[in-house]
Amino acid sequence: MIVTVTLNPALDITYRVDGLVPHRTHRVSAVDERAGGKGLNVARVLHTAGEPVHATGLLGGDTGARVRALLDNDGIASAFEPIGAETRRTITVVDSDATGFWEPGPVVTPGEWSAFRARFVRLLGSASVVVLSGSLPRGLPADAYATLIADAREAGVRTVLDTSGEALRAGVPAGPDLVKPNLDELIALTGSADPDAAAAAAWVERLAAQVRALGAGAVVASAGADGLVAVTADGTWHARPPEIVTGNPTGAGDACVAALARGLRDRTPWPTLLADAVALSAAAVAAPVAGAIDAALAARLRPSVIVTPLSQERPAC
Amino acid sequence: MIVTVTLNPALDITYRVDGLVPHRTHRVSAVDERAGGKGLNVARVLHTAGEPVHATGLLGGDTGARVRALLDNDGIASAFEPIGAETRRTITVVDSDATGFWEPGPVVTPGEWSAFRARFVRLLGSASVVVLSGSLPRGLPADAYATLIADAREAGVRTVLDTSGEALRAGVPAGPDLVKPNLDELIALTGSADPDAAAAAAWVERLAAQVRALGAGAVVASAGADGLVAVTADGTWHARPPEIVTGNPTGAGDACVAALARGLRDRTPWPTLLADAVALSAAAVAAPVAGAIDAALAARLRPSVIVTPLSQERPAC
Repeated sequence: MIVTVTLNPALDITYRVDGLVPHRTHRVSAVDERAGGKGLNVARVLHTAGEPVHATGLLGGDTGARVRALLDNDGIASAFEPIGAETRRTITVVDSDATGFWEPGPVVTPGEWSAFRARFVRLLGSASVVVLSGSLPRGLPADAYATLIADAREAGVRTVLDTSGEALRAGVPAGPDLVKPNLDELIALTGSADPDAAAAAAWVERLAAQVRALGAGAVVASAGADGLVAVTADGTWHARPPEIVTGNPTGAGDACVAALARGLRDRTPWPTLLADAVALSAAAVAAPVAGAIDAALAARLRPSVIVTPLSQERPAC
Repeated sequence: MIVTVTLNPALDITYRVDGLVPHRTHRVSAVDERAGGKGLNVARVLHTAGEPVHATGLLGGDTGARVRALLDNDGIASAFEPIGAETRRTITVVDSDATGFWEPGPVVTPGEWSAFRARFVRLLGSASVVVLSGSLPRGLPADAYATLIADAREAGVRTVLDTSGEALRAGVPAGPDLVKPNLDELIALTGSADPDAAAAAAWVERLAAQVRALGAGAVVASAGADGLVAVTADGTWHARPPEIVTGNPTGAGDACVAALARGLRDRTPWPTLLADAVALSAAAVAAPVAGAIDAALAARLRPSVIVTPLSQERPAC
């Protein structure tokens, strides 16, 4: 079973309005609500793909109750540690484009964090892969993911880490089996910046190798529309979609992580796994909302994904 | 006891942001939540003023649960008829000024409306005055307030109606003891429009008398900063604040209604009642949020409110 951990989930609310005019009142014509947060998107993609998945994390208050109800509606198995503070909301107001308002979210107490850790360790008994996604709520230590990665390692469970900023910086040295930074996160982690080279596969490969040297078992870096660059113990590859898919890029990274977690569970060879991940990411871009996939598109693109070994020497294990 | 009826309550959420820029994502620095809807503001003002009050209406879903929790926190006695759909939210984003997003709100079923009416009739047994405030949710008949006014009349309970549009137009002929239209509502109800005369007390008095002729026992029209114009069976008056109070006008009308309901309950003579209402309205303008009052300001202004009889002949009863 794949367990997804979402420590800072959200109630994602989308409002449709005719045109956003600052300092006016707008009647919202349509309201959409989803259980949000990167880990929940990963869980939703896995569930849609028919994979057994269990979502866990922290939820609080009436907003947390609403998130849980939405997950139940989607048929996603979940059990969250309850917290005293209210789970955050994100509001996206859509007219010709999207305007976002992100609440600061709850402050988690040390007791709640301990209770979650105990829950997590119990869950490890039935997990083969754990996915750790998204930001940390206030109150948690910056090395929260490092702690969970150590717990998982002790239980013999593989880990995928997909976060950013300090949470990523503090998590990588704990040795997650796989991290999935994007270009911004690669640059932040390595301190490198070469605007001329940006997004060139060889440059992404070099930064990913630096991140791998910090402790990650494998680094799969997303290069946006240019696909994925993977630096692993078994080799390095560039996986590209056969065509540019336009749509909603939100959630593409989460679909990619879902495919990576499944491949890690099945010990799929890297070239096959990367092609799966590129096809599923593209299928998420084509779907209207985060966490959804266009399964027919994934099946159509999958055979044509281009996976090429990269030039760099095979890194030492 | 005063009963306030809020058929379309809201969870009022206020976000503070540095500056609203369309098509960007904003981190919200502060979140404030309140139980909203005009009837709940009236209940909060009465409760703050130490008056026994019971809030009722319709609430649904996790948003409804949140509204109830906030009322409980404020110590306001309440019991709502549960509905299947989610209670609406209103989001106000504040930078240098306010930008609002109003959800369309729930659709109420005929069965839920019947159940509410039965609850309302039971409540009438312990009520002396009922306040009917705000918009009607979708699914309710336009004459919903007329129905409740007839129920109250049958039980010998006096009614205050403060709404707008079709709900007001359909409610007035049922004979509420008091309606409190503002200038826009007076114009809409009477079809009169005389921009040159707008807000002149004599003109407001004429329109209010027309509205009274439609069925209301008394009309107390708010003329904004210029105070109140009352057309009643006992005479007509203009009540003005002794000074201009600046601040947040949202909720001033609800504070006015709270004072009117209390006066109706106590059968306070109109000039005294109107002076109370003007002072409490001004005290609401000076308070930072709807439903709150600056009690010290109310006490200071109260003796200086200017109440003058108006020229029009005493209307026939």
